Amino acid sequence: MARIPVGLVGVTGYAGMELVRLLAGHPDLELVQATSRQHAGTPLGQLYPFLHGRPEAKIVVQSPDSATLAAACRLVFLAVPHGAAMEVSAQLLKAGTKVVDLSADFRLRDPEVYAKWYGLPHQQRALLEEAVYGLPELYGHKVTEATRLVANPGCYPSGIILGLVPALREGVISSRDIVADAKSGASGAGRKPSTGTLYCEVSDTLRAYGLGTHRHTPEIEQELAVAADSPVTISFSPHLVPMNRGILATSYGRMQQPLSLEEVHALYTSCYADAPWVRVLPEGTLPETRWVRGTMFCDIGLVVDRRTDRLLVVTAVDNLCRGASGQAIANANRMLGLEPCTGLDLPPMMP
Amino acid sequence: MARIPVGLVGVTGYAGMELVRLLAGHPDLELVQATSRQHAGTPLGQLYPFLHGRPEAKIVVQSPDSATLAAACRLVFLAVPHGAAMEVSAQLLKAGTKVVDLSADFRLRDPEVYAKWYGLPHQQRALLEEAVYGLPELYGHKVTEATRLVANPGCYPSGIILGLVPALREGVISSRDIVADAKSGASGAGRKPSTGTLYCEVSDTLRAYGLGTHRHTPEIEQELAVAADSPVTISFSPHLVPMNRGILATSYGRMQQPLSLEEVHALYTSCYADAPWVRVLPEGTLPETRWVRGTMFCDIGLVVDRRTDRLLVVTAVDNLCRGASGQAIANANRMLGLEPCTGLDLPPMMP
Amino acid sequence: MARIPVGLVGVTGYAGMELVRLLAGHPDLELVQATSRQHAGTPLGQLYPFLHGRPEAKIVVQSPDSATLAAACRLVFLAVPHGAAMEVSAQLLKAGTKVVDLSADFRLRDPEVYAKWYGLPHQQRALLEEAVYGLPELYGHKVTEATRLVANPGCYPSGIILGLVPALREGVISSRDIVADAKSGASGAGRKPSTGTLYCEVSDTLRAYGLGTHRHTPEIEQELAVAADSPVTISFSPHLVPMNRGILATSYGRMQQPLSLEEVHALYTSCYADAPWVRVLPEGTLPETRWVRGTMFCDIGLVVDRRTDRLLVVTAVDNLCRGASGQAIANANRMLGLEPCTGLDLPPMMP
Amino acid sequence: MARIPVGLVGVTGYAGMELVRLLAGHPDLELVQATSRQHAGTPLGQLYPFLHGRPEAKIVVQSPDSATLAAACRLVFLAVPHGAAMEVSAQLLKAGTKVVDLSADFRLRDPEVYAKWYGLPHQQRALLEEAVYGLPELYGHKVTEATRLVANPGCYPSGIILGLVPALREGVISSRDIVADAKSGASGAGRKPSTGTLYCEVSDTLRAYGLGTHRHTPEIEQELAVAADSPVTISFSPHLVPMNRGILATSYGRMQQPLSLEEVHALYTSCYADAPWVRVLPEGTLPETRWVRGTMFCDIGLVVDRRTDRLLVVTAVDNLCRGASGQAIANANRMLGLEPCTGLDLPPMMP
Repeated sequence: MARIPVGLVGVTGYAGMELVRLLAGHPDLELVQATSRQHAGTPLGQLYPFLHGRPEAKIVVQSPDSATLAAACRLVFLAVPHGAAMEVSAQLLKAGTKVVDLSADFRLRDPEVYAKWYGLPHQQRALLEEAVYGLPELYGHKVTEATRLVANPGCYPSGIILGLVPALREGVISSRDIVADAKSGASGAGRKPSTGTLYCEVSDTLRAYGLGTHRHTPEIEQELAVAADSPVTISFSPHLVPMNRGILATSYGRMQQPLSLEEVHALYTSCYADAPWVRVLPEGTLPETRWVRGTMFCDIGLVVDRRTDRLLVVTAVDNLCRGASGQAIANANRMLGLEPCTGLDLPPMMP
Repeated sequence: MARIPVGLVGVTGYAGMELVRLLAGHPDLELVQATSRQHAGTPLGQLYPFLHGRPEAKIVVQSPDSATLAAACRLVFLAVPHGAAMEVSAQLLKAGTKVVDLSADFRLRDPEVYAKWYGLPHQQRALLEEAVYGLPELYGHKVTEATRLVANPGCYPSGIILGLVPALREGVISSRDIVADAKSGASGAGRKPSTGTLYCEVSDTLRAYGLGTHRHTPEIEQELAVAADSPVTISFSPHLVPMNRGILATSYGRMQQPLSLEEVHALYTSCYADAPWVRVLPEGTLPETRWVRGTMFCDIGLVVDRRTDRLLVVTAVDNLCRGASGQAIANANRMLGLEPCTGLDLPPMMP
Repeated sequence: MARIPVGLVGVTGYAGMELVRLLAGHPDLELVQATSRQHAGTPLGQLYPFLHGRPEAKIVVQSPDSATLAAACRLVFLAVPHGAAMEVSAQLLKAGTKVVDLSADFRLRDPEVYAKWYGLPHQQRALLEEAVYGLPELYGHKVTEATRLVANPGCYPSGIILGLVPALREGVISSRDIVADAKSGASGAGRKPSTGTLYCEVSDTLRAYGLGTHRHTPEIEQELAVAADSPVTISFSPHLVPMNRGILATSYGRMQQPLSLEEVHALYTSCYADAPWVRVLPEGTLPETRWVRGTMFCDIGLVVDRRTDRLLVVTAVDNLCRGASGQAIANANRMLGLEPCTGLDLPPMMP
Repeated sequence: MARIPVGLVGVTGYAGMELVRLLAGHPDLELVQATSRQHAGTPLGQLYPFLHGRPEAKIVVQSPDSATLAAACRLVFLAVPHGAAMEVSAQLLKAGTKVVDLSADFRLRDPEVYAKWYGLPHQQRALLEEAVYGLPELYGHKVTEATRLVANPGCYPSGIILGLVPALREGVISSRDIVADAKSGASGAGRKPSTGTLYCEVSDTLRAYGLGTHRHTPEIEQELAVAADSPVTISFSPHLVPMNRGILATSYGRMQQPLSLEEVHALYTSCYADAPWVRVLPEGTLPETRWVRGTMFCDIGLVVDRRTDRLLVVTAVDNLCRGASGQAIANANRMLGLEPCTGLDLPPMMP
C-alpha cells in the first residue's frame, strides 16, 4: 500500500528535524515535501547530512507555497513561528489539505488571551473555533478523520498539564496555589544562531528565564481550568539546562484532602489506565528525562509531603518528540484514519 | 611573614579538592597537613596531578590523627561525612586547634532535629552550643579570633537562605508558603564511585531527588525562622543537573505586601549593602551559575509576579566555593584574625 | 508468527542496555531471558525504569545458567568480560544454542596474540577456529544459518577497520605507516562505578589513555593485514571525550599512489556499494558522531593531503549500536535466517 | 603604586572575556579602556553580568579609536580578527603605545606564507620584522621593555610546538613524519552566533574540521623548523570537542634514535627545567585538559612506542589562558618591566 503523502513547512528548526526523523521510521506516512525559504533548492541530505543515503535525503527543499503543498500532501505539518502559522493554515485548509500546526496560533481558545500574551491580534477566529487542542490523553477522542486542524500543544504544557490534570479533576489540590518549576534542554531554545545559545554559553551552567511571563503560561492555565472546572493561575518558571532534549517539571500543589501517596498514586494510575504513553512511575520512583528520550512517554512521579501538605508532581517529556513532533504525528495518525500509535512505538535511547 | 599552618581532614572529596585549590592561592594560610585513610603515604601531587610542580604537590597525605594535626596546625578544616566530624572536632578542640567543620554535625542548633533528620544522636551537645553557623552575611560578626568551632553551612542552604532572609525579615512574604526548587551540579553528589553519578548517567539528563526529605531542609528552615521570627516550613526540592559546579535555586514566596519590584529590589540592596559577596542583580537580570563559578558570590535575581502575588527569588552560588570550601576559608580568616576576604577575591571563570 | 526467543548474559552494562533497547524494537526476535548475578530476581523494569510499561519490563533477571538459557533461547548474546565469555560460549554451544559473543574472546585468530594482549591463555582453541569475526561488510557472507559462534567486533575496530580496508586493499596507502587517533564517548568506559568515570571527572575535559597498549590494537592490525595481504603495525591512540555515545577516529596513511580525492572517493564508494550501513560521505563532508547516533551507520570522510602525501580517513560509529549491540543483532539475524537489516533500519537521533 | 593602564580592543569575544578575567586579578595592570564597535556605550558590567559589583564593571565600552587608546594606555591588547589587527597595530605603535596582538597578523615571519594561508597580502612588513613571536619558553628572552610589538601565538600552536620542540632539537624524531591530532573545546570556535556552534550542535558529538588546511599549520611548521633546523611539514588535524576550554593534542613522531622513555623524559625535563609553566608529567601519566583549566600550564605526557618506533607527545593547554589571553599578559608583563609570572600564578580549577 502506498504511504500517505504529507508535507512539512519549516524543516530547518529542531521540530522540523525531529519530524523528519520520526517520519523516516513511519510505516504509513511519507514525507513528500519539505519547505524552507532559506534553503530552497537544497536536497534534504545536504542540509542534514545525517540523512545521507536514506530515501528522505533526495527530497529537495522548496520555498513554501500553499498550492504546491496542497496539491501533493493530504496533511501538512507547520513548524513555523506563531503569527505566520495562522495565515498558512488558512490557505492550506482552503486548498483542502489538513493541518497540524506546531505553533501557538490555535492553542488558546480565547483570541483576547492570545492577543495579550502574543502581542498580536488573532486573524483566524473561525479556524480557532474549529481547531482541536491536540493533547492525546485529553482530546484524542475529538481528533478524527473529520478533523481538519489540530493545534499541537507546546512543549512545556504537554508534560505539566498531564501531571496536574488528575489532581485538579478530583480536587486533590487547590486550583489557587500551584507552582510549576520547569527545566528544559537547549533544543527548546530553537536553532536560530544567537550568542545566548552557543555551546559555551549553555554548557556547565544553568539559568532561569521568562519567570512569570512565558507564553506557555496561559496555555497551561487554560487546560488546568478545564480540569478544575474553575479558573487556575499558576507560577510557571522555565529554566535552561545544559542538555539537548527533555523537560523535567516539578509542580507543587496545596493538598485539599489528606490523601496518602498510595491513594494519589491509585488515582493517577486509574486516570491514565488507557493512555499508553503516560507512565505513572511506581511509588518512590522519580522520572529522569533520559528515560523518555526520543519517545512519546510522559513519565509522572508523585510525592505526598505531609510536612507541608503539598503534592509534588514531577513530569518528564522529550520536548521534541512528545512536546512537539511526535505528538504532531499522533494527531496526524488520527486525522488520517491510522492507529494513533503508528510509527510511535519508540523505545527510549539510553544512555 | 610565615603563613599560618592549617590542615585538612578528608582531602579526596570535591570539597577537599576545592580547599586545596583555594589554599594554593591564599597569601596567609598554608596547607601543611592533608589526610585520607585510603591514600595515606601518597604525595598530593600524585593523588591530584593537576598540582604537579606546585608547592602543595609535595605534601604527603597522612592517615588522620588528631594529635599530629593539632601539633602542626592552628586550624583544621573537616571535610568528612557527618557523624564522623563531631568526634574529630572534639579531639582537635581539646588539643587546642580550631576547627571549621564542613559537615552537617554542628549546623542544627537543636540536637533533636539533628537526630531526626540524620538518624543518629548528637554526641557533642556542649560543642553544639559553642559552634557558630558560618554564613558570613548572617553570623560573620560572631566569628572572631575567640571562635573555636564553626559549622560551615551546607551548599543548598548557603544560597537559599541568603535569597529569602531579607523578604522574611521585613515580612514581605508569608513564612507559611515557601517553595524552594533547587538545581545542583554533579559535584554536589560527591566523589565516591557509584553508578548513579557516572558520566553517562548524569549527562544529557535531569532528575529530582530527595523531594521533601533532603537533610538540608531543617537547616534552611532554622535560619529562615530566625529571619521571620516565627517557624518556617518549606518545600525544598533538589535536582541534579549535568554540570560540574553551581546551584541555582528558584524560591517562591507568597507576598503579604503589595510591593513593586523596585521596592523589593531596594530592600534587598540595602540589606546586603555591606556584603561584598552578595550581588543583588539589576532589576530584570536573573543569575546564571557560571557568573559565580569558582567564586564566593551569591547572586540574587528578583521577580515580583503580580498575577500570582508571588515573589520569586533566584539565587546562584558555586556549591564548592561559596557552598563549601570558600566559605570555610572566609570563616577561617576571621578565626585567625585575617581580613575575611583574604584569598577570596576571585573573579568568575567564564566560560 | 511467534518471534524467535533469544537471551542476554550480562544485562547491566551499556552493551546489555543497548541490546534491550534494540530488541524492544525488533520485529522477529524476542528477549526471553536476561541474566545478571548481581540483580537476579529483579524485574527488568525495576532495574531499568526507562522500560516501565513496556513488555520487556516484566522479564525477571536471572542468575546466569547455561542450561536454562539453552532450554529457552535459540541464540544468546554474551555481554560479559573477556575470559568469562569463552567458557560460557562453550557451554551454550554444547547445549545446542548459538552464541554471539560481544567480548574479545574469539576475535583474535591467533591464540598466542590473545594470550599476549589479554594476559591469559585461550581455553577454547577449537571454538576459536570455528568463530566468525562478525564485521558485516567483511564477513557477512560467512555468517549463515550454519554459523554457531560469532565474535562480535570491538567498538574501536568496527569503524577504523572499515575506514582503512579499501585503501589497504588497493595499495593506496602504505601498510607500514598508519596512525589511528580515536575518540570515544564515555559509555565505552563501561558502567562499573569508578572515580575516573564520574560525571565530574569526564565532563568539560579530555584525556588520552592506553596509548600504544590498548587491546583493540591487535584486532585492528589483524583485519588490516588481511586487507593489505601483509603485516600491518599501527599506532592506535584512544581518547575519552565528554559525550555519551560515539567514536570518531581520524586515521592517517602514507599515500603510495598520487591519487586525487575524487579517485579515492570513487574507490571507497565502489567498495561499499552494497553495504547499506557504510556511508561514504560526499567529498568535502566530514562525519560527526551525532549523525550516526543510535544507528548501524559507519560514516566515512576522506581527505587527500597533497602537502604531506597523506590520506586521512575520518570514521564515525555509534560505539554501542554499530560498535557492539546493533552489530550483534545484525549477526544474529543472519545466524537465524532473517534479513541482516531486520530491526536495524534506525534513523539517527538528532540532536 | 598605581597600576599600569592597559587597553583591550575587542572585548566581546572569548579571548577578550578571558583578558578581562585575568586583568581583574592582576596586581600591577589595570584595564582602563575596552572597545567594541557593537557595544559602545555599554558598561562592562552590563555586557558581562558576571562582573557585576567588581571595579571593572564600571568601565564603559568604547568604539575603538587608536588615538584615545594610545592616550590612556601604555599597552593595548588586540583581540580582533586577522587582517584588521595589522592596521590597528600600526596606528597604536605610531602613537607610542605598545601592542600585544592576539590575532595571526604578525605570527608568520614570511609575508608570502601569510598571504597564501590567510588569503590577503601583508600590509605591515616592517612591523612584521619587528614583531616577536610571544611563546615564552622559546622567545621570552627576546621580549623586553624595548619590545613594542608581540605576536601572541595561536591556541593550537602554543601546546603542539612546546610538545615537539625538544624532540626535534635533539633529533629524537624525524622532521618529515609528524602527525599532530588536536582536540579543542568550543570556545576556540569563537563567540559569534552561528548554527554550527549552538549548544545542541556541539553537545554530545564530535567532529573534525579543517583537516590539512587549518591556518595554524604554517605557524606550527615555522617554529618546528627552527627547532629541527630544517623544513618541517606536518599533518595537523583539529577536532571540536563538547567542552568549554582546553586543547589536547596527540602528536606522533618517527623515532630516529632508540631512546627509552626514561631518556626522552630526562631530555624534556632538562629542556624545560627553567620553564615554570611547562610541566613534563611523570612517566606513565598523561595530561587532561582540566588539569590546566584556567592556567598558563602546558602539560606534556610522553609515550615511547617500541612496536611502532614512534614517540607520542600528548600536550594539554587551556586555549583561552595559555593559548591566548594568559600568554598575552605574560608578554605584556615583560614588555612593561614586570616579572613574567605576575598575575599568572593560577591554580587549576578542578573540577
